[in-house]
Amino acid sequence: MKINGTRLMEQMYHLGTIGFEEGKGMTRMSYSPDFFKGTEYVKGLMEDAGLSVTEDAVGNVYGILRGSDENAKIIAFGSHLDSVPGGGIYDGPVGVLSAVECVRTLKEYNYIPRHSLQVISFIEEEGNVIGGLFGSRCATGHMPDNADLANMKMHGLTIEDVERSRIDPSRYECFMEVHIEQSQNLELSGTQIGVVGGIVGIVRYKAVMTGFANHAGTTPMRLRDDALEKSCAVITDLLERVRSTGNTMVGTVGVLNISPGAANVIPGTVEFIIELRDREMEGMYRLAEELQRDYAERGLTLTKILEQKNVPCDARVIDAMETACDGLELSHMKLYSGAGHDMMNMGRLMPGGMIFIPSKDGISHRAEEYSKPEDIINGANVLLRTILTLDEA
Amino acid sequence: MKINGTRLMEQMYHLGTIGFEEGKGMTRMSYSPDFFKGTEYVKGLMEDAGLSVTEDAVGNVYGILRGSDENAKIIAFGSHLDSVPGGGIYDGPVGVLSAVECVRTLKEYNYIPRHSLQVISFIEEEGNVIGGLFGSRCATGHMPDNADLANMKMHGLTIEDVERSRIDPSRYECFMEVHIEQSQNLELSGTQIGVVGGIVGIVRYKAVMTGFANHAGTTPMRLRDDALEKSCAVITDLLERVRSTGNTMVGTVGVLNISPGAANVIPGTVEFIIELRDREMEGMYRLAEELQRDYAERGLTLTKILEQKNVPCDARVIDAMETACDGLELSHMKLYSGAGHDMMNMGRLMPGGMIFIPSKDGISHRAEEYSKPEDIINGANVLLRTILTLDEA
Repeated sequence: MKINGTRLMEQMYHLGTIGFEEGKGMTRMSYSPDFFKGTEYVKGLMEDAGLSVTEDAVGNVYGILRGSDENAKIIAFGSHLDSVPGGGIYDGPVGVLSAVECVRTLKEYNYIPRHSLQVISFIEEEGNVIGGLFGSRCATGHMPDNADLANMKMHGLTIEDVERSRIDPSRYECFMEVHIEQSQNLELSGTQIGVVGGIVGIVRYKAVMTGFANHAGTTPMRLRDDALEKSCAVITDLLERVRSTGNTMVGTVGVLNISPGAANVIPGTVEFIIELRDREMEGMYRLAEELQRDYAERGLTLTKILEQKNVPCDARVIDAMETACDGLELSHMKLYSGAGHDMMNMGRLMPGGMIFIPSKDGISHRAEEYSKPEDIINGANVLLRTILTLDEA
Repeated sequence: MKINGTRLMEQMYHLGTIGFEEGKGMTRMSYSPDFFKGTEYVKGLMEDAGLSVTEDAVGNVYGILRGSDENAKIIAFGSHLDSVPGGGIYDGPVGVLSAVECVRTLKEYNYIPRHSLQVISFIEEEGNVIGGLFGSRCATGHMPDNADLANMKMHGLTIEDVERSRIDPSRYECFMEVHIEQSQNLELSGTQIGVVGGIVGIVRYKAVMTGFANHAGTTPMRLRDDALEKSCAVITDLLERVRSTGNTMVGTVGVLNISPGAANVIPGTVEFIIELRDREMEGMYRLAEELQRDYAERGLTLTKILEQKNVPCDARVIDAMETACDGLELSHMKLYSGAGHDMMNMGRLMPGGMIFIPSKDGISHRAEEYSKPEDIINGANVLLRTILTLDEA
């Protein structure tokens, strides 16, 4: 049994016109008219595939196909339909449309699943409107934080809407997501499919380096306590330490602010954000503690401002995906997702799994984002085989 | 002959109430009501000292006392009355009030100068309203730049006003300024008077470091081209190179901006401003060229955005000031001003000189700015003796 690749790609390209502007890329932000236009299109496809469509109070869309065994739990799969501003057409839609296409294929083959099958299209995964992974956070019972609440207000959403959107995880067998890799591991190694071993954990620290602001003209070098010079030493050392842990941890300083911030004033205080990601949390905590300890006397203070525990994928789901790749004679490798995905929230409450397909040049969140039709079709076929394996188990 | 120290300090403290707010410091910005209130007070003091007061089209105030020799050029001295927002009461006023007090003392001693004596109170030295050294730039024939023009408009000032405010430098014998040091050279060495050898030159370069912006989660360390990490290496190296030139050059990076500037995106471009100051220009140009050359391949581009040539003080004026210190039995040292002053503009067109008095902890541009009464009085007496020496020569 194989999905209809031509049909899938036609749907990809059609959905890819909704919110797309030449030269600017895809801007289909959650709760925008284009977002709802895209959602309506996908709801239609779901119905064509035989799914019963519902939408929850925050805008997540569910399509369900009842299974033959009332006691069997739901096998769910999907992704998200929203984009970043000026993004690409693949990040999210690949997973949603592959999911719908799998169900449609099963229907065409008159396959009656034992488990109920559910396609989920999450809203607001990208987080530019309300907050990252908002849709799947609501579904999995996370309460919005203050920033979310302020943004929710602008879209008429309430705490009650969030509470009403919670799913019952005990009813689920698993959740699976097909997604573009957004990195180059598959492309550089010439591998067709990535079977995700887990989603890395993230910690962020606000780093404050204290020096002494003074006149840049009248203060000789020997009398300076330059917070930027000391911060440069910390950042250089930090990235060296991250590298020395091996090849799985990444560390980034993407935000840095100097105070007072004038060309003729020696930096008095520098604030920057250290982000660490790794497959396990321990090494990151240790690295931050050591950095804090080694630079405390020179004026460094680290405060943890974000912590997202790593989420391992389920061994049985991984196994079913690898078996599917082998059956389809597709080369595959195990890899870890450095980015967050809706599977991260779902995978904390139920067995989870992800299938990655190659991204050209590893680029995403830009108009240049691209994945080959054959890779998209491969991903959908791996999902289809995995569903069959899990349904028959 | 000595100035009246009690009177000078009474005037200092009275002027120091105009625009001063407890806990916030002195905010007497050019063209503000408080600025004009302060100016009116000083004009009154000038008239009391026997000076004929005029004001030019941009707001510089001149008080002249005719000398006995019509062919002798003008001996001018003064400083500025405007402050930064939240500054101190000494930066500027010390020089203006000392200048007025010298003339008043000469009058009380019935001294008839051979040269005409002129007290100048420049407007907008600090540059927070229109642009740095605006008043003395207008007086010395500099044309406003585009940023100045935009700011001038808001205060109803035109190019014609600037042109009408030009002085004729050929009529001047010299210009002298008493000012707080704004650094700790005098304080740390326990010296009473600083005789300024010159004002350092300044060059500023916009540095752009190019890397490649990418997802902070999905891009392994080995595949990164992190513009911030490379910038840290440049900044660290730059400051080392500045130190290695000796003890006169200073280098500062006080502004730095990361693009795109998100905690989860590897910095793609970092822009920062390198400011160098030294007694001579050559060493700074060479240092910047070498830095550009050594880091060009790693993505660094430097563009010169500001250049202010160093201004040496006049040897004869310096000599007269040193002789004055010796005559008053005041310890003195030769030093260079790392900050710009109105003397910088005047000193390019005529012999110039500056007298520095100690600043507590080197602090200026803050409410905590402080100079002792005895030091202020010493500075005024050195100016008085220097005027007498130059007038009698």
